[in-house]
Amino acid sequence: MSDVAIGLDVGGTKTLGVLVNREGVILDELKSSTPHDAQGGAGAATGKVLSEQVATFAQRHELDLATLPIGIGMPGMVRRDGRLAFAPNLQTVSGASFPELLKELLGSELVFMENDGNCAALGEYAWGAGRGVENFVMVTLGTGIGGGIIADGELVRGQSGFGGEIGHMAVEARGALCGCGGYGCWERYASGGGLARLTFEWAAEGRLPQLVELCGGAQNVRGEDVTRAANEGLVEALTLMNDVAWWLARGLANLVAILDTGHFVIGGGLSVVADLLLPSAREHLVDFTFGYDRRPPIVVVTSDLTVHAGALGAAKVAFDRQP
Amino acid sequence: MSDVAIGLDVGGTKTLGVLVNREGVILDELKSSTPHDAQGGAGAATGKVLSEQVATFAQRHELDLATLPIGIGMPGMVRRDGRLAFAPNLQTVSGASFPELLKELLGSELVFMENDGNCAALGEYAWGAGRGVENFVMVTLGTGIGGGIIADGELVRGQSGFGGEIGHMAVEARGALCGCGGYGCWERYASGGGLARLTFEWAAEGRLPQLVELCGGAQNVRGEDVTRAANEGLVEALTLMNDVAWWLARGLANLVAILDTGHFVIGGGLSVVADLLLPSAREHLVDFTFGYDRRPPIVVVTSDLTVHAGALGAAKVAFDRQP
Repeated sequence: MSDVAIGLDVGGTKTLGVLVNREGVILDELKSSTPHDAQGGAGAATGKVLSEQVATFAQRHELDLATLPIGIGMPGMVRRDGRLAFAPNLQTVSGASFPELLKELLGSELVFMENDGNCAALGEYAWGAGRGVENFVMVTLGTGIGGGIIADGELVRGQSGFGGEIGHMAVEARGALCGCGGYGCWERYASGGGLARLTFEWAAEGRLPQLVELCGGAQNVRGEDVTRAANEGLVEALTLMNDVAWWLARGLANLVAILDTGHFVIGGGLSVVADLLLPSAREHLVDFTFGYDRRPPIVVVTSDLTVHAGALGAAKVAFDRQP
Repeated sequence: MSDVAIGLDVGGTKTLGVLVNREGVILDELKSSTPHDAQGGAGAATGKVLSEQVATFAQRHELDLATLPIGIGMPGMVRRDGRLAFAPNLQTVSGASFPELLKELLGSELVFMENDGNCAALGEYAWGAGRGVENFVMVTLGTGIGGGIIADGELVRGQSGFGGEIGHMAVEARGALCGCGGYGCWERYASGGGLARLTFEWAAEGRLPQLVELCGGAQNVRGEDVTRAANEGLVEALTLMNDVAWWLARGLANLVAILDTGHFVIGGGLSVVADLLLPSAREHLVDFTFGYDRRPPIVVVTSDLTVHAGALGAAKVAFDRQP
């Protein structure tokens, strides 16, 4: 059994690799651009980037590739057998089997794949803000909303391994169109992308007059302009952030009803403005949650592992699933 | 270890008791009215009914109450410790501990309590339409929507034991007011109560002209009038049933996204008109489900155990949880 593992978190723009020991300490770290190059078949370009990171770690730390456990976190529907069924934000890798690719390229035998949100949940459960919490949900607020569910200490993988796609829960039956083809998905309201969409709508509707003037036109107002202005106390920006928090709480309350979740760990890019979202979301939760006052207080905290959650979790997957 | 167990399913109007062997065969059955009498403190009247059923079974079959496992399914929030936190449809029992009551009244030592939807899920998993399916969701369409989640062969109980309250997932953020105080809960659209509510609305809006004439006024049209007319092919009634199926599929699709559920078992009173709902709901699922075509076909079937699902599941709880 190896004392170290590699975790590789493949994002839409960047791929983050970490070398981790069994205590979750990051010993080394690499960052690369994620290629969107379809040449060479499903995932060949991405597979090459991953194998370069692995080879670099192996060389620097004199590791034996045949016995080194490697975990890969992928944004998309990862099957239990490790094959990627679908990656909406990384179309060139759909259908790829990175375990097979890395075996071919490097002779790696111990390569495991898992959805990136599920990795983040496992990372926070092992070494982060979910440590020791047997029932919690990881919620990653990025362009969309990803996540992972821990129930009685186990990841909820579901029939095929696709569990935890919480961002595609519809909270508004005939609501905003989503990239997945559905309507009213949670991530169209409470993610970074949701903030961008709401900003565009509010600006066009004249509900952000000061920001529109400041940015030189409704079409120029971005989500970051709203968060910056909200941090500076601009009322119209704070009102919009409260709307995002309202929607965030909507989805959290649904997860409480379904799973009896008492603990949420919030990560992803939008979590850097947690101060603008979570206090208000916690208040809305009181109204939205079925039987709120019959439950222990619901905890909503930010990620401990922040940008490393996915990669650390991928390494944890590698530690746990090696034979 | 006892070869038989008692399962008691406490409903809002009736309490159904069964004596069951380890193969799930019902050896005896009793039905009583559920009292809504607050005298004697939390649950005293209901406890008396339960103890009478247990005593009757024991007498008829010469069973030893000290070693006989008894399971109770309750409509409400049942804590892991067996205490009832809240029963919205049976207010007089909120806070009651039936295990303690039955111990007092009969000397029973092995009494276990679980939510009725969770019981139904465990019953179908052991002996019904979920047999051998490691990941499925039980959906009971009654006045509200109850349910239970089986993930990797285990009931998802959640932090306190309140898991599976799927009817209180909001599918329409600013939708119809629910008895729970929330808005847009799934059960306001896709249950027997949801059908009644939609019937009332549609009749008032003039969308059920023939039924209104037939029943002698908009206020007289009931859900049962709609299902009867739909079975006879009346287009306006079929249209309304399709709307209910549309909402049913909405919630099912959410559960697929969150849990990667590949199999649903539909029970409860409204499932007697499954032929009017499920074919249409299955079609809507194709549109609503995130990554539908990347998944194995999603199975939606009716309960095998029908009215006995809850009581049989309560007996299964008793078998499984006895020390």
